[in-house]
Amino acid sequence: MQQAAAIGTSSLQGQQLHRRTPAAARRPGRAPVAPPVHAAQAQLGLTDKTHDGIVTSGNAYRPAGTVKRLPIAYSPEWNALREHTKEIESLHLRDLLQDEERTDSLVREHNSLYVDFSRQNVTQTTLQLLLNLAERAKLRTKMNAMFAGEHINNTEDRAVLHTALRMPRDEQVFVDGKDVVPDVWEVLDKIRDFTERVRNGEWVGATGKPLTDVVAIGIGGSYLGPLFVHTAMQFDEQCKNLSQGRKLRFLANVDPVDVAKALNGLNPETTLVIVISKTFTTTETMLNARTVRTWLTAELGQEAVAKHMVAVSTNLKLVEEFGIDPNNAFGFWDWVGGRYSVTSAVGILPLALQYGFEKMEEFLRGAHDIDCHFRDTPFQDNIPVLMGLISIWNSTFLGRSSVAVLPYCQALSKFPSHIQQVAMESVGKQVSIDGEPLPFKAGEIYFGEPGTNGQHSFYQLIHQGRVVPCEFIGVVKSQQSVYLKGELVSNHDELMCNFFAQADALAIGKDSATLRSEGVPEYLIPHKTFSGNRPSTSLLLPSLTPFRVGQLLALYENRVATQGFIWNVNSFDQWGVELGKVLASRVRTMMHTARTRSRRITITDGFNPSTRKMINRYLDGKNQMLYPEPRDVFPCDLIHSEGCDTKW
Amino acid sequence: MQQAAAIGTSSLQGQQLHRRTPAAARRPGRAPVAPPVHAAQAQLGLTDKTHDGIVTSGNAYRPAGTVKRLPIAYSPEWNALREHTKEIESLHLRDLLQDEERTDSLVREHNSLYVDFSRQNVTQTTLQLLLNLAERAKLRTKMNAMFAGEHINNTEDRAVLHTALRMPRDEQVFVDGKDVVPDVWEVLDKIRDFTERVRNGEWVGATGKPLTDVVAIGIGGSYLGPLFVHTAMQFDEQCKNLSQGRKLRFLANVDPVDVAKALNGLNPETTLVIVISKTFTTTETMLNARTVRTWLTAELGQEAVAKHMVAVSTNLKLVEEFGIDPNNAFGFWDWVGGRYSVTSAVGILPLALQYGFEKMEEFLRGAHDIDCHFRDTPFQDNIPVLMGLISIWNSTFLGRSSVAVLPYCQALSKFPSHIQQVAMESVGKQVSIDGEPLPFKAGEIYFGEPGTNGQHSFYQLIHQGRVVPCEFIGVVKSQQSVYLKGELVSNHDELMCNFFAQADALAIGKDSATLRSEGVPEYLIPHKTFSGNRPSTSLLLPSLTPFRVGQLLALYENRVATQGFIWNVNSFDQWGVELGKVLASRVRTMMHTARTRSRRITITDGFNPSTRKMINRYLDGKNQMLYPEPRDVFPCDLIHSEGCDTKW
Repeated sequence: MQQAAAIGTSSLQGQQLHRRTPAAARRPGRAPVAPPVHAAQAQLGLTDKTHDGIVTSGNAYRPAGTVKRLPIAYSPEWNALREHTKEIESLHLRDLLQDEERTDSLVREHNSLYVDFSRQNVTQTTLQLLLNLAERAKLRTKMNAMFAGEHINNTEDRAVLHTALRMPRDEQVFVDGKDVVPDVWEVLDKIRDFTERVRNGEWVGATGKPLTDVVAIGIGGSYLGPLFVHTAMQFDEQCKNLSQGRKLRFLANVDPVDVAKALNGLNPETTLVIVISKTFTTTETMLNARTVRTWLTAELGQEAVAKHMVAVSTNLKLVEEFGIDPNNAFGFWDWVGGRYSVTSAVGILPLALQYGFEKMEEFLRGAHDIDCHFRDTPFQDNIPVLMGLISIWNSTFLGRSSVAVLPYCQALSKFPSHIQQVAMESVGKQVSIDGEPLPFKAGEIYFGEPGTNGQHSFYQLIHQGRVVPCEFIGVVKSQQSVYLKGELVSNHDELMCNFFAQADALAIGKDSATLRSEGVPEYLIPHKTFSGNRPSTSLLLPSLTPFRVGQLLALYENRVATQGFIWNVNSFDQWGVELGKVLASRVRTMMHTARTRSRRITITDGFNPSTRKMINRYLDGKNQMLYPEPRDVFPCDLIHSEGCDTKW
Repeated sequence: MQQAAAIGTSSLQGQQLHRRTPAAARRPGRAPVAPPVHAAQAQLGLTDKTHDGIVTSGNAYRPAGTVKRLPIAYSPEWNALREHTKEIESLHLRDLLQDEERTDSLVREHNSLYVDFSRQNVTQTTLQLLLNLAERAKLRTKMNAMFAGEHINNTEDRAVLHTALRMPRDEQVFVDGKDVVPDVWEVLDKIRDFTERVRNGEWVGATGKPLTDVVAIGIGGSYLGPLFVHTAMQFDEQCKNLSQGRKLRFLANVDPVDVAKALNGLNPETTLVIVISKTFTTTETMLNARTVRTWLTAELGQEAVAKHMVAVSTNLKLVEEFGIDPNNAFGFWDWVGGRYSVTSAVGILPLALQYGFEKMEEFLRGAHDIDCHFRDTPFQDNIPVLMGLISIWNSTFLGRSSVAVLPYCQALSKFPSHIQQVAMESVGKQVSIDGEPLPFKAGEIYFGEPGTNGQHSFYQLIHQGRVVPCEFIGVVKSQQSVYLKGELVSNHDELMCNFFAQADALAIGKDSATLRSEGVPEYLIPHKTFSGNRPSTSLLLPSLTPFRVGQLLALYENRVATQGFIWNVNSFDQWGVELGKVLASRVRTMMHTARTRSRRITITDGFNPSTRKMINRYLDGKNQMLYPEPRDVFPCDLIHSEGCDTKW
């Protein structure tokens, strides 16, 4: 155990020497960077003081299967927090919120980002105990290992470096001895060049027309993040001007209805298709890619593929086999997880086509700004770390199983879906990074809708039902200004009145005495009572520019990473999605077999009775439809050729 | 107590006499209807056998504040279920699913709707115990009271009759002695007439142009339901043809970004605006209505309002004050709750404009079909009742706090949001209908995304993290057919392979022995293990026509009602949304005062330090912007007038 620790530590510090010293030397004003001597790092929140376990880094994990560390849940710091819940449960936010000093001590600011934790069920003691837990969990060591390019995704033996995707050209970060920042910028430069040529009409389609419309085919991490950023930028005034006359659509679901939606009204002659799949084997994406390729070639011929289709992938061989010119493939790396890939070509290529590359650089700078804050700020002032710690406090210690993400900003309407993915796929795990069953539940259920919409939907429950920690996100300057003469406030003010009010309604509540004094009839009092004491965090952004969107993204990415480090799970693999894929493939094969042999699924096909009955019902239903096997079938309005007249 | 029971019962049966006998006599093939003699109703699931409490109906509730009934949670039936959890926890779905007889006994079918409960953690015993609980909770009595128009929404003293909105013309249902079906059809006939005139170009705008585009302004119940149905019908082939050349947009959020989105690219000359608000006082909706009115009149003059704006409301006085011709107001009634109003003018008017009235009649028939099934089918075969009971089993007894709604159908992408509202706003309550604190948690967190999208997002957690009961919804015949030559299966087949596979992956899982036999290295086995035994329901629809969309809607509405009846909460009020509104109004006033007096919020304004700091930060930020008070401000591309040049 001691030996393993020693190896882990020295290898970590070796990496740090490569990366951090030059960067820190170059950029004045950055928070102090820890020198590579361990003794000098003993400042709280800049390093870990406890050294009783192995360092969790790189391939050291595999042998660690036999060298077990005491789970975090059995540490004294964990127990102290459990004990502390009793004290917290005796306090009400109604009272805590009157304390001006407490408020001041629970507000954090970074680069005009304002975060108020005062409506969390915490005191200064809680924060200190959580910081102690972070130290016990070796949060700093794990963060450093991540930023240093160590293989912290141990089950896949990969580094985790989405943070490198937004590093300035002059930084360095080494993966297996190789600086990856130049690679990152090589792809970015290629994106800049390509997107400029498409946008200025230099790159044209098969019939010589400029490509004004883009369909980005991808699913999960290749979809939700780019969609969130697109939605967030769409009504920013500059972005709106930059995207004039252009369309960006996403195609994710393998459902042909989604194909119809994505292609509806588009003309193949002016459409550029981006196929986004890390491995270029994602079933849904590749079937959709073949479908859209057919749509293109039916109209423009086979040779149109080279002009109308490009790829974002790490698998150049399959890209070429598909018919896409490998020169038009934009790469990324195995150290970028799907759900963390928005800042790679996955997001930057389609978004730069829509808004221009400069806007995407702004976005990258925003994400990098938060990465630096996360990496360099002592924990007590580190916003993503505090968000992660408080999330653990709410879920693991106070037993709240869900989180509501509530942007008071319609432009962030897709943010909850993206964060739902980032959080639930990352830390929705049952075993520790070492493969030990967790003695607690990791991962929360994330959901959310933009306020004020959510207020008229599910807020009833969060005010008077189960306790759901809420994260309110507001913006000072709206992307759009609407003000009507004679109104008390502008439309955006009206929105923000709700942002301020809801957090207080949850925290403070309304008791029966108040209701009685207002003359509410006795039989209604229990129904109109609000217990209050319901936690929330308020996050106020100065505006919603691409830079701020980048900050918001990195804030949540790093907050989830924090949670994973403390719960000690691998936040960067996703084995839980594999079984469904295998079973789907089996159903596919059997379905094909049953069809071609004109038989039903039988008991010998190995499905349980329920599945057998359901598949047969489905096949029987399909058999009653006209199912023309020998040729391509498309909804007619998707295909512009004369011969299209076959419908079910 | 005895007296209250007697009054409740006799009044209920009086209503039944009015309504049920003629309907039953007219329509052969309907399930047998109980005669009004109580002794004859003692068939399980058609009436309640236990008579130890007061009948919960009508105004009898208010005095009941003092006459307490033993809460359901202290009943022997409740205890029996609690006891039974131990037995269920010893069983694994992997084994249960092998039992063909059990499968057959857990599948239900109604009018080609196929529902498979075999992947729930239940046995025949569980079902029987749940049915016993339903009886103890007087489910049948409460359902009858609802259908009979009694004031079961006791805190607002209202009937609950969204089911009357979809009754055929020849049925009757009495509210306070008046048959409401003729009123329902009067509005429907008016919608048919109006929408036909708009669609055929007879009704034109102020400049004589046909109104091809519709903006429906409404929030919560006036938004999510119509949006779900619109999305579900959009790519149905017939609906698509019927809506050729027409647009339907929704404007819900008071955020001006949502205004910009809704109006983007529309021309006031060809736009019809529907303002949807029951009271015509909903803050967000009315501000948006005034905003869009300004957009219209800036271009077309004040008199355009009569031609370009109509209302759905119960408040004709305010409609007229707003400037809308009361003849162009489409009414509904206090017995229609917002979240249950999709089948009222709230949904039917905008949707009939888009798709034609006939399609909406189909949709209403689908909802009515399920209402009849819910009302008339013995509980053991009653699909919404079984869904409700199993939801209670999962949440209250097995401790699962959330539900994932997973349509394998992109056209149902907005269904989870709508059901999130219906469920969480209805049963997310802390007190019983009599105002007693609940000794258990009512209401679950609903969330969901269409499969296969969700698979690549949050499914990791539902396979290997917290247990989340899932509801898979699939369709046999897709709205769109895409089949590529050379593929094993069609695109829709591919989608449905996942529908079948995911339910089995959750239920069956994969154990370490299997992984070992496949040669998975030891250190990966814990990460690749699936515990299985995770519950789900599979729902298979033959197609997604308007009729089927109506069925789906009513299925979930009635399922939520079932849960509310058993938990004994009022599913039809929503007091929990009031406090936020009051506080928002206070912020609005203070914000206006601070602005006009050029001061900041101070301690004397009564806000807590956190809110004071945040509002001041917001006001300071806004002050730095150009904020032109004396005239209307709009984003320039929303307004087509020459003079539009003011921007922040």
